[in-house]
Amino acid sequence: MEYKPLSGREFPRFSGIKTFFRLPHVNVDADYDVALYGIPYDGGVSYRPGPRFAPSKVREVSSLGRGFHMERGFSIFDRLKFADVGDSPTVPIDQLQTYERIEAFVGELARNNKKMIGVGGDHSTTLPVLRTLRKHYGRKLGFIHFDAHLDTYPAAWGCEYHHGAFARHAVEEGLVDPEHMIQIGIRGPLAGGDDLNFIKNNKIRVFTVDHIRNGSLNDFLCSLPKFGDIPTYMSFDVDCLDPAYAPGTGTPVIGGLTTYETQRILRSFEIQNFVGGDIVEISPPFDHSDITSLVGVDVMFEMMSLMVKSHAK
Amino acid sequence: MEYKPLSGREFPRFSGIKTFFRLPHVNVDADYDVALYGIPYDGGVSYRPGPRFAPSKVREVSSLGRGFHMERGFSIFDRLKFADVGDSPTVPIDQLQTYERIEAFVGELARNNKKMIGVGGDHSTTLPVLRTLRKHYGRKLGFIHFDAHLDTYPAAWGCEYHHGAFARHAVEEGLVDPEHMIQIGIRGPLAGGDDLNFIKNNKIRVFTVDHIRNGSLNDFLCSLPKFGDIPTYMSFDVDCLDPAYAPGTGTPVIGGLTTYETQRILRSFEIQNFVGGDIVEISPPFDHSDITSLVGVDVMFEMMSLMVKSHAK
Amino acid sequence: MEYKPLSGREFPRFSGIKTFFRLPHVNVDADYDVALYGIPYDGGVSYRPGPRFAPSKVREVSSLGRGFHMERGFSIFDRLKFADVGDSPTVPIDQLQTYERIEAFVGELARNNKKMIGVGGDHSTTLPVLRTLRKHYGRKLGFIHFDAHLDTYPAAWGCEYHHGAFARHAVEEGLVDPEHMIQIGIRGPLAGGDDLNFIKNNKIRVFTVDHIRNGSLNDFLCSLPKFGDIPTYMSFDVDCLDPAYAPGTGTPVIGGLTTYETQRILRSFEIQNFVGGDIVEISPPFDHSDITSLVGVDVMFEMMSLMVKSHAK
Amino acid sequence: MEYKPLSGREFPRFSGIKTFFRLPHVNVDADYDVALYGIPYDGGVSYRPGPRFAPSKVREVSSLGRGFHMERGFSIFDRLKFADVGDSPTVPIDQLQTYERIEAFVGELARNNKKMIGVGGDHSTTLPVLRTLRKHYGRKLGFIHFDAHLDTYPAAWGCEYHHGAFARHAVEEGLVDPEHMIQIGIRGPLAGGDDLNFIKNNKIRVFTVDHIRNGSLNDFLCSLPKFGDIPTYMSFDVDCLDPAYAPGTGTPVIGGLTTYETQRILRSFEIQNFVGGDIVEISPPFDHSDITSLVGVDVMFEMMSLMVKSHAK
Amino acid sequence: MEYKPLSGREFPRFSGIKTFFRLPHVNVDADYDVALYGIPYDGGVSYRPGPRFAPSKVREVSSLGRGFHMERGFSIFDRLKFADVGDSPTVPIDQLQTYERIEAFVGELARNNKKMIGVGGDHSTTLPVLRTLRKHYGRKLGFIHFDAHLDTYPAAWGCEYHHGAFARHAVEEGLVDPEHMIQIGIRGPLAGGDDLNFIKNNKIRVFTVDHIRNGSLNDFLCSLPKFGDIPTYMSFDVDCLDPAYAPGTGTPVIGGLTTYETQRILRSFEIQNFVGGDIVEISPPFDHSDITSLVGVDVMFEMMSLMVKSHAK
Amino acid sequence: MEYKPLSGREFPRFSGIKTFFRLPHVNVDADYDVALYGIPYDGGVSYRPGPRFAPSKVREVSSLGRGFHMERGFSIFDRLKFADVGDSPTVPIDQLQTYERIEAFVGELARNNKKMIGVGGDHSTTLPVLRTLRKHYGRKLGFIHFDAHLDTYPAAWGCEYHHGAFARHAVEEGLVDPEHMIQIGIRGPLAGGDDLNFIKNNKIRVFTVDHIRNGSLNDFLCSLPKFGDIPTYMSFDVDCLDPAYAPGTGTPVIGGLTTYETQRILRSFEIQNFVGGDIVEISPPFDHSDITSLVGVDVMFEMMSLMVKSHAK
Repeated sequence: MEYKPLSGREFPRFSGIKTFFRLPHVNVDADYDVALYGIPYDGGVSYRPGPRFAPSKVREVSSLGRGFHMERGFSIFDRLKFADVGDSPTVPIDQLQTYERIEAFVGELARNNKKMIGVGGDHSTTLPVLRTLRKHYGRKLGFIHFDAHLDTYPAAWGCEYHHGAFARHAVEEGLVDPEHMIQIGIRGPLAGGDDLNFIKNNKIRVFTVDHIRNGSLNDFLCSLPKFGDIPTYMSFDVDCLDPAYAPGTGTPVIGGLTTYETQRILRSFEIQNFVGGDIVEISPPFDHSDITSLVGVDVMFEMMSLMVKSHAK
Repeated sequence: MEYKPLSGREFPRFSGIKTFFRLPHVNVDADYDVALYGIPYDGGVSYRPGPRFAPSKVREVSSLGRGFHMERGFSIFDRLKFADVGDSPTVPIDQLQTYERIEAFVGELARNNKKMIGVGGDHSTTLPVLRTLRKHYGRKLGFIHFDAHLDTYPAAWGCEYHHGAFARHAVEEGLVDPEHMIQIGIRGPLAGGDDLNFIKNNKIRVFTVDHIRNGSLNDFLCSLPKFGDIPTYMSFDVDCLDPAYAPGTGTPVIGGLTTYETQRILRSFEIQNFVGGDIVEISPPFDHSDITSLVGVDVMFEMMSLMVKSHAK
Repeated sequence: MEYKPLSGREFPRFSGIKTFFRLPHVNVDADYDVALYGIPYDGGVSYRPGPRFAPSKVREVSSLGRGFHMERGFSIFDRLKFADVGDSPTVPIDQLQTYERIEAFVGELARNNKKMIGVGGDHSTTLPVLRTLRKHYGRKLGFIHFDAHLDTYPAAWGCEYHHGAFARHAVEEGLVDPEHMIQIGIRGPLAGGDDLNFIKNNKIRVFTVDHIRNGSLNDFLCSLPKFGDIPTYMSFDVDCLDPAYAPGTGTPVIGGLTTYETQRILRSFEIQNFVGGDIVEISPPFDHSDITSLVGVDVMFEMMSLMVKSHAK
Repeated sequence: MEYKPLSGREFPRFSGIKTFFRLPHVNVDADYDVALYGIPYDGGVSYRPGPRFAPSKVREVSSLGRGFHMERGFSIFDRLKFADVGDSPTVPIDQLQTYERIEAFVGELARNNKKMIGVGGDHSTTLPVLRTLRKHYGRKLGFIHFDAHLDTYPAAWGCEYHHGAFARHAVEEGLVDPEHMIQIGIRGPLAGGDDLNFIKNNKIRVFTVDHIRNGSLNDFLCSLPKFGDIPTYMSFDVDCLDPAYAPGTGTPVIGGLTTYETQRILRSFEIQNFVGGDIVEISPPFDHSDITSLVGVDVMFEMMSLMVKSHAK
Repeated sequence: MEYKPLSGREFPRFSGIKTFFRLPHVNVDADYDVALYGIPYDGGVSYRPGPRFAPSKVREVSSLGRGFHMERGFSIFDRLKFADVGDSPTVPIDQLQTYERIEAFVGELARNNKKMIGVGGDHSTTLPVLRTLRKHYGRKLGFIHFDAHLDTYPAAWGCEYHHGAFARHAVEEGLVDPEHMIQIGIRGPLAGGDDLNFIKNNKIRVFTVDHIRNGSLNDFLCSLPKFGDIPTYMSFDVDCLDPAYAPGTGTPVIGGLTTYETQRILRSFEIQNFVGGDIVEISPPFDHSDITSLVGVDVMFEMMSLMVKSHAK
Repeated sequence: MEYKPLSGREFPRFSGIKTFFRLPHVNVDADYDVALYGIPYDGGVSYRPGPRFAPSKVREVSSLGRGFHMERGFSIFDRLKFADVGDSPTVPIDQLQTYERIEAFVGELARNNKKMIGVGGDHSTTLPVLRTLRKHYGRKLGFIHFDAHLDTYPAAWGCEYHHGAFARHAVEEGLVDPEHMIQIGIRGPLAGGDDLNFIKNNKIRVFTVDHIRNGSLNDFLCSLPKFGDIPTYMSFDVDCLDPAYAPGTGTPVIGGLTTYETQRILRSFEIQNFVGGDIVEISPPFDHSDITSLVGVDVMFEMMSLMVKSHAK
């Protein structure tokens, strides 16, 4: 099987059954390198729901995707075999069951030695993925976390696993290594000052919007840490972006990043062992003209490019 | 305290803090007769979420509400004291906790001898209300159920209490009396023929759209059963209406009722002991120009009028 | 000059500068028969604004208009000369000045012996037109009034001339003859029972939705009064229609007419001396896919056809 | 292979890669009975474009589809094998090439002895399908045509094959038999009276909205002709419906049918040899909350049911 | 009474009756420090209406508000008592009456020695507030004015008090002190060159977008003047922002500020005696996904933080 | 005739028949200097259609246009006579015919020695304009091309003249001089690396977003080439902008320019012989609150200002 997108020059991009980047839809155990998949679940959101529709919508919009990275000078589809493996099973009403099913689904990807890029889902869906990869790789993960929010908040309404607490659990459960964890795009306001304690106590590096914009972008990029042989996961919450760029999300925060900034940041990473990533919190019912989903497609593309670079090492 | 809406002739309807029908916001134990309240929860939906925003949106749109019923010839606000008692607590992630909180909230209304009209929420929120009222009144309830769907479907994804199963549980748990239960607006297609077995086995009267439109509307209205001294609850799922009239809902079905038909049906009921009602499955993110929420306001108004009639008996 | 629309078979309907029905834009004193014009003013609304954009939007959508009336069997453009004379001047902030300018504009049309069909504007814009025509014709007018609301309501917020009071002033000022006045599409709820007093006291014939749907539509049509040599004006508030058919309006009311019903009613009128009409309360910002403006175009077309019939007598 | 939809009770309807009715995506020559396919082309429209996105959107919305027909008492998926065969190739810029590709695609379906139901595309896409089937069956086809427009109009802008002329070509090219052709939902206004000549000259039976609503719906249904052994094709233009029910279309016309009426008409047909059908002119960019696409899904379902009935004969 | 927002960690943010920042709704004379209130009036706009709905919508969206300012390091709710005092009465049709009612409402706030932050309303609503505060404080006010427009334009359509003239009246009536007045975000085009005369003649400092972006943002911030003991008012017209950030406004202008820029400007002000502020020209009907209202919430938050700083002095 | 816009201070901007900048609608051979016109055609798009509605929508939104350029210090309407000459004829189905009609229309403008600024239309409409001007001026044109895409791509679906190939044809047909051609706003990803060959082979200067943002904007502006006596054309595809600024377009690309950047670039050009320009790929059905059309109006304004500067030389 050839793992190439259907060409837009032969088949109009609005035609055909929608898969990520018009790639083949294959079984989990086929001979591809990197799995693209969806986690349609939004039971963990605290305000606007909708990310359950993100995998379907990002597949549709990814018809506009292309493979040649102008800055890197290669086509990702010439370097690695990407495929759409469908969606993880989920249970809209029941987070516990959903977690079990995500772990089973991702676990099978891992057992087949696949790298993976998922489209959530709200941010509570990242936790079971991290649990699975932690188990699979037998060590704590490096973790790159784009977000407006720290997501280290305490339980809400008596529930631990809402979408604003996953990063805390990831640290507390020993899934990610705080020394190799960064957060990008954080900004206030917060509910209270003690929201910052977890970050401080765990010495997690936080790059706020102010930090990023304090000097030139090029200078900031140089300050980013490198990720070596530690298996590294990246989670991109679209609300790291300003609502002007990503209106279709559940808890938007004013004063966020631009897509150009996140593109440049994504392009500047050096990640030796990039094992997986996800794009979460895209809420199509609150988007317009699919611009937020289009961001999701582009972030997938940059992650796929990072996979190529990581793989080459 | 005077339980009258702020007048639109004195204060423009777009102004002021939004309560149902611009009525006073009071504590549960104030001296009103009928509580208007919200249940902002949509964790039980199977397709489009959104009803968590319905209480807030219906409050806003109810600014257009008025009190004098042209066909009945009285103003509901001259006859009974209606008040907004706020929203039931809910937990977006956890249905079990949500059920407990709804039961506590509604239980307190019942203990204060209040009648009640709620705005859901998805249809899974009706079950805890019925449980509470069954316990309070010490007998099975009469039940009028407007819906496109039977809501007697089996468990889905291993979960019992999704929004398409509440009516089955209401019967199975002995909350409502199938002999005094009707369903209005039902239509296909169904997932399978055995979906009809529960209705048949329990001899529940179902009025499909075909049934309603087979002859004249007046003839149909005459065929509706009367509800005597049995405490009677009414649940109005807006998807009983055609999507042209109620686009803002989660699982719309083509070929539904018109608002004129449901108005006439609501006006023709004779319910001697009308103890409570709800309007569910309004999904503001999928509505346009708030027309579905406006239907919700009108159904509230008709239920309030039925409360007046019931009270007078 | 030929008063024919640009043909859609020669020039695509999405092209060209937008006039009503793609007709010539002429000066008030040109040699046409019937003036089509706009009154872009919505300072009289009580809830949602927006009709200020209706003339522009209806012009755009009227590109879809056509001239041959299938039921009547003639093309309106073969029978009378219609032209777009532009918009009446208005002052968005100041109703009094707006009234003066409308009266001046319409007065000039009348002095040129033109019939006229206007696109409002909110319903407060009808009053200055009626004042002008009353003066011009030297007698009270016959008046056909489509609406969900009686528009005979008292002053609001200390203001007489809001959009819900014009019909009262039209009667009180002796502009229209209550004996030759009908209201179509009225429905509740009302603010209070005394809202009906004005209608009762002035013996105005009101056809509610219930009235219209009580028997067959054909029977209802037969019950409509005829309008003889009295100069007759028709005002069509799109909220006479159900929000499913006309969502783009300021104070929508559930349970309204269908466009098919109003088409049949418009086609059944016999009006010997039809001097003018308007379509009001279209609010494009609250419309979707322009369906409400499309209703406006169709009502214009039916009024234009009635002008032809009236003219032939 | 089992030709059954993915169950909504096992897999949430918002999950998974989207095919029509969640059916398997198969090759044209697999062992199914009826092909569901798309024709994403809208180069023939005269006003609003958009139907190029209809196949993709209808696939998405058909996740809400179900198989058991309540009125007929069977599940269509128990009776026939339906499958999604993907989209016909098209060329957005070039109608001639598009026609060739549609004829090739549909021709292959026909050579494999498949029945077929397509989702357009604008109405100009029906012509190449009819050409193919005419050739395949070696005789003129019976033709059932739902539409607001006659589609027998002359060339526009020097082009023969726009979306308002396909029915004329179908008759002129001898593809369909005017004696076994009906048009349903037609209404005015027209560009001119001579628009009716083609229908009159060819003695095609036209059922206007007035015709359908003149008496009771049941009486009208009895007046519909039966279709015997003649291979019969049905084309459903969603603009036969009123814009309230189908706003997402290119040239909407006020005063149209309700979905209940078309459901009843579709259910009352007796078609002995139903070989193919299509649903055209759905324009997702002008729809809201996908209600027009949902109509498309329901019409597909009724056509699929008619295929079952036809097949059984 | 405790002047704290309802916690989002206890009560989901989509629940409850909507007040600004989920704060208590109190009487004007309660013991709070700063009044949050609405002025629902848009009779002064020249193009798109809609701000009449801004107070209601901003209340709803402010459910997402939080109190801890990350850059300042304190929670505003720990420092001052903020409360929602409801809306000023307004008269949609009549600007003069509206002005009287705003002056009465704001006057009562002032007499109770409250600071105040209002949500308009169009920009014509700022004038009566300035008049009241001028009178209350017995001296000219310092004035910080964010806007795309100078709002010093001459009368339009014979009306003085449209939304583009309030700043001229504020200066001409001696309400604000031109020496302590700045305008931020101004950009062209203008109707004519003489539009600049008023600014020049009164020596008002204008910071255009070019000015702000000419060097680094930090340098610009240093150039801002300080406001000493003069009672200072700030009016934030959301159209100072680019339409990408604030599409929901009446007269948007391309090439505007980003929210990050206005956040940084707001945070850099030193205002010793900050007595009041407003956020105006938010037009919810033209917004999408409430992003413009969310800007309004954030600007309120920054103003509230400035109140804290000012109060501490 | 006076070539001045209707004043917004006399006539509200929402009133009147819509022409570009409220200018007179005149015949091609009237005595104006610069023609403003539309090319309503989108048959060349590869993904989302819609630009056929751009001329009409930009006319509407240009009611907000003003004439005094703050940075340049003059009013364009004092310097040159601008007029709206209507739309070029087009044939929605047939590109070849459309090209012929555009060439005829533009040819007549050229023969009348008019400068011209057009509103497309998709980018395939620029080619016939360039052909016409090439012929008229008897030499290759200078060419300034704003775009996210190179538009030098090969044929697609067997069609040469899609919207992504016009620049290639313009070079290949010798219409523009590659030495005096620049492209601004280009960014990836591309379909393949060979997409860059045409640019390289023809030595066309490409300014990518990275290039523009590498240093300060002022530095970049200094690096722009000057255009001398060569007749120069400018084509502005709104997708050069980021989707946050221009969502209403057919093939949006993340990471684009801001309107402030394009304003500054447009203002910094020195073009001695500026003969024509266009703004293309605005797709109103995918826009929100008309912000993309508003960009179009502003780009027109900057082009008109450049015409003034060019003319003065």
